[in-house]
Amino acid sequence: MTDTPDSPDTLDASDTPDSSASPGAPGDSKDASPARRPGGRTARIRAQVLDAVRTELGAHGYEGLSVEGVAARAGVHRTTVYRRWQDVGGLLADVLDAAGEDDWQPTDTGSLHGDLTALNDEIQASLTSGPPVVTGLIAASFRSEQAARAQRELWEDRYARCEAIAERAVARGELAPDTDARRLLVTATAPLYHHLVLLRADPDPRMPEQAAATAVLAARAGAFARPEPGGDDPT
Amino acid sequence: MTDTPDSPDTLDASDTPDSSASPGAPGDSKDASPARRPGGRTARIRAQVLDAVRTELGAHGYEGLSVEGVAARAGVHRTTVYRRWQDVGGLLADVLDAAGEDDWQPTDTGSLHGDLTALNDEIQASLTSGPPVVTGLIAASFRSEQAARAQRELWEDRYARCEAIAERAVARGELAPDTDARRLLVTATAPLYHHLVLLRADPDPRMPEQAAATAVLAARAGAFARPEPGGDDPT
Repeated sequence: MTDTPDSPDTLDASDTPDSSASPGAPGDSKDASPARRPGGRTARIRAQVLDAVRTELGAHGYEGLSVEGVAARAGVHRTTVYRRWQDVGGLLADVLDAAGEDDWQPTDTGSLHGDLTALNDEIQASLTSGPPVVTGLIAASFRSEQAARAQRELWEDRYARCEAIAERAVARGELAPDTDARRLLVTATAPLYHHLVLLRADPDPRMPEQAAATAVLAARAGAFARPEPGGDDPT
Repeated sequence: MTDTPDSPDTLDASDTPDSSASPGAPGDSKDASPARRPGGRTARIRAQVLDAVRTELGAHGYEGLSVEGVAARAGVHRTTVYRRWQDVGGLLADVLDAAGEDDWQPTDTGSLHGDLTALNDEIQASLTSGPPVVTGLIAASFRSEQAARAQRELWEDRYARCEAIAERAVARGELAPDTDARRLLVTATAPLYHHLVLLRADPDPRMPEQAAATAVLAARAGAFARPEPGGDDPT
């Protein structure tokens, strides 16, 4: 278990333009190789250590994480890890921080339905393919307040980037200008997290498209119109 | 921290008809007093022990749970707890099993919008009021495979009961007979779990109604029609 499809050799990724896949769905954190990060050795050690955290997390879950184990797998001295990351919570938080340092943007397919489906496809893939790194990070966020804060910030950042989907739809005339983009995005994506992370059900290949289509239909019916002052019942 | 609003004295609840509140939202597990459970002493010990698990979980989370601590709080001998529940996973699973033994049914308000709003109000209350027992159980299900299975079964049972909401709406002519009730229910409820459990955001008092209204609008637009053979794109 020294290498997996989801743990590509990113030891030097910090010194090169980010050429690896950027799954980038909200909550996705597998690809944490920072793009064009300056500083050779420091960045390289960070990449090695964070890669080791992801590999250990994917292989053994939170239980399998220790500063010593991460240091050994990364091939760096444990005092280096303690000094920079303090503990497992610090390591997890930095994995999540690093996941937000990429240049991911939501795919522009030319339609709201297509954009939301593409987003959901990425989320479903991030939650189901390869070692369970993303699910492991979500689970770990119940254990460490530091990881929880970093997870929240990553999601906030991902949803903020995804607001471009709504903006494009407004520009195309598919959505009303007063659409609450965040509610639209949560409606489109929450069923996948609910199904895969909380209900731990088997992935349903139709779900990404169905959840996207549901959000589009609701949007067209005015479900995400920002409430007018004095009235908030859209039905 | 010997007693809390959410840990009423249920020591004898197993011997009486279930008169306590039945929050009963999907995933809700605070009220585990079995209704009309036969068997005085055995049932009473179970009630004491499960009440102790809920209290410890609400106060200290999964980390604070131990067979010894639960036995001490319940006032029963630890060998009794080990013999019947084996370990923390067994205790958590039984709390979740017990939560499914009530006679909870979704509120019948006379409209789909009202029923889904009432359901979401219960879910939001179960996730935000009192000690974090329900959230603690969800978090614990990431730690124990046994608890995860019991959590899944509880949710499955709750969603199955909630299908009555869709059946009533079909009977009233509010929904088409081919509506996929489960997708409707997940669309209505998933945003709350996403917001409160995964994103750990502050509760939004408008969210229960907004998420319900969104699901109703999507349903009216045909989002939950079961796909016809050979075509599954409802847009």
